[in-house]
Amino acid sequence: MRVGSKEVKDQMKNHLKSLVLTAANIEQIVEKVGVDQIMDQLIERTYNVFVEFSDQESIMPIRSGFNYTEPKVGLIEWMPIRDVTHEEILMKMVAYHPDNPKDYQLPTILSTIATYDTRTGHLKAIMDGVLPTALRTGAASAVASKLFGHPESRVLGLIGCGAQSITQLHALSRLFKFEKIMYYDSDAPTMSSFENRAAFLNLGIAFHGSSIDEIVASSDILCTATSVGVNEGPLFSNIQPKDHLHVNAVGSDFPGKIELPKALLLKSYVSPDLPEQAAIEGECQQLDAKDVGRDIISCLKMANQLEHLKQESTVFDSTGMALEDQIVADLFLLHAAEMNIGEYIYLENTNLEEKNPYSFLLKLKH
Amino acid sequence: MRVGSKEVKDQMKNHLKSLVLTAANIEQIVEKVGVDQIMDQLIERTYNVFVEFSDQESIMPIRSGFNYTEPKVGLIEWMPIRDVTHEEILMKMVAYHPDNPKDYQLPTILSTIATYDTRTGHLKAIMDGVLPTALRTGAASAVASKLFGHPESRVLGLIGCGAQSITQLHALSRLFKFEKIMYYDSDAPTMSSFENRAAFLNLGIAFHGSSIDEIVASSDILCTATSVGVNEGPLFSNIQPKDHLHVNAVGSDFPGKIELPKALLLKSYVSPDLPEQAAIEGECQQLDAKDVGRDIISCLKMANQLEHLKQESTVFDSTGMALEDQIVADLFLLHAAEMNIGEYIYLENTNLEEKNPYSFLLKLKH
Repeated sequence: MRVGSKEVKDQMKNHLKSLVLTAANIEQIVEKVGVDQIMDQLIERTYNVFVEFSDQESIMPIRSGFNYTEPKVGLIEWMPIRDVTHEEILMKMVAYHPDNPKDYQLPTILSTIATYDTRTGHLKAIMDGVLPTALRTGAASAVASKLFGHPESRVLGLIGCGAQSITQLHALSRLFKFEKIMYYDSDAPTMSSFENRAAFLNLGIAFHGSSIDEIVASSDILCTATSVGVNEGPLFSNIQPKDHLHVNAVGSDFPGKIELPKALLLKSYVSPDLPEQAAIEGECQQLDAKDVGRDIISCLKMANQLEHLKQESTVFDSTGMALEDQIVADLFLLHAAEMNIGEYIYLENTNLEEKNPYSFLLKLKH
Repeated sequence: MRVGSKEVKDQMKNHLKSLVLTAANIEQIVEKVGVDQIMDQLIERTYNVFVEFSDQESIMPIRSGFNYTEPKVGLIEWMPIRDVTHEEILMKMVAYHPDNPKDYQLPTILSTIATYDTRTGHLKAIMDGVLPTALRTGAASAVASKLFGHPESRVLGLIGCGAQSITQLHALSRLFKFEKIMYYDSDAPTMSSFENRAAFLNLGIAFHGSSIDEIVASSDILCTATSVGVNEGPLFSNIQPKDHLHVNAVGSDFPGKIELPKALLLKSYVSPDLPEQAAIEGECQQLDAKDVGRDIISCLKMANQLEHLKQESTVFDSTGMALEDQIVADLFLLHAAEMNIGEYIYLENTNLEEKNPYSFLLKLKH
């Protein structure tokens, strides 16, 4: 079918609406597919996409954004990625405002994800990014933990019990047979509500509210996902963890914000998601380049040479990648198409006579 | 009213939907307000915002984006701006695909504009950006032409008769009493349809299809808005224009894409919108920094010292600013609010129990 032919033009005309997937649509998909199934699919896709990743096929510039202290401490970032094969660009807008829960009863992280057709620049879809962000961050930790964590890990530690901790727990529990979950949050209501919030996962595992020090000393795998302030980290120091401790450092994603002590990083194999980005806003801020290991994608590609790391101290420095957003967006868009969920709207002015922005006024006169 | 108080929380809850202004909504506003009135309001606001601009209040990073030659020659860019006073971030996504009209009967430029609340990161509104982009580009040329153009300008030249030329003509005709419009397009159907496309503006002015050389030689004010290819410019050379010619160079907005001959630039006072950006993708690509004049905003602020330029050769190197998008978005949002136009939707997952991304599943079970 020749580009420019009537068939292609008609086909494009049929595809010039933009799909809107609201928060309710995203929830509907999770309900229908099942929350465990969605997480399993996401973990599998994350693993497969990471292993097959090519920087010729996926062009992912470092994210950029505004950060500020007025009117609130906050940050709004844009995370773009271009998928050459699928002729698509994805842009995630993501905001981090740690006062949201306290001041506005809102999630700390708000987000939307949009996809564009590189044939025409058309906005193909826009969707809620809040739940997808939490899910994909969990899935990435699961993939990293499978690679680096001790296979017999029985104790999972969670420092920070906000929204992200739920999906960390969920994702990891799909791959490991934990016997004990140890958790801590500096905010008493967040800590006391955690077991209730996690209960519906039906994990059949013992939950123990604990101290940071006890958690660090006892965990096989640890996830840190706190809102510790800039220049207020690390969360702990001078605790002797297990030799094989694997940490998913999720919370450090802002210049000056760190969660882990430098001493732990120095004795661990530290794998960032995006080295350049992690050096600016991740745990890698604390490290010289020579002390940073290979990125997580490179590590996955050479997993059979890294088996020994399962017995050693490791850190996944997870700052977040647009690639993960693309994986979760693709999954939801696939389910949305299969289930006929979402609404198509004419958002962009694509149906105008192409060389007259005022053509709609002419039509009125005829 | 204290932040964190029940009143503020309720107020926020009422504002957590996102306003969607579709292409049809934007058209509806233009129809109701009147196309001339919209343009006049936009020109006035553009002038006022430029004159009052402060880089402490408006933080506008250089735009960034992807450009490519496959599957089509194209470019998708993001243009962010932070308005400190109004606690807002605006992001315009804009795509330029010169084959769109020919291959898909679509506008060359597709676009959406979104605004975010810097208190929470919430997406306040998303709207069509196609018509707003054309309008604001016209308004910027009008403001620049008022500053630099000869007050008795009678002949307007238009090279490139696509969508942008219509709003250039419209905007400039609101400020000048033209007696003759000379136009040219390298595409015969675009050229032959131009008068019909422009007729509804009811300008009562004579239109003359002409050659580039005649247009350059005869114009008092000239607008170039072509899709000339990378490394295929300039559009003309060795033509002697009037001494007071003012050019709005609109089309050059891509590395390697230029419309004007270097000799004309060198003998003109060249004012870019954003010097750093124009040096990469505007006519200023051809110039050393020493040959570039002050930016358009600085020039407007010192207009009384620049009266002499009205008699001299001048160029407005218009690559496009997020500030212009903010001005046009504000205008449409104001009218939308007054007229109760647009739809509010829950796009982001803001209504979940703030620390449990799966809370919607819990509700199902109760």
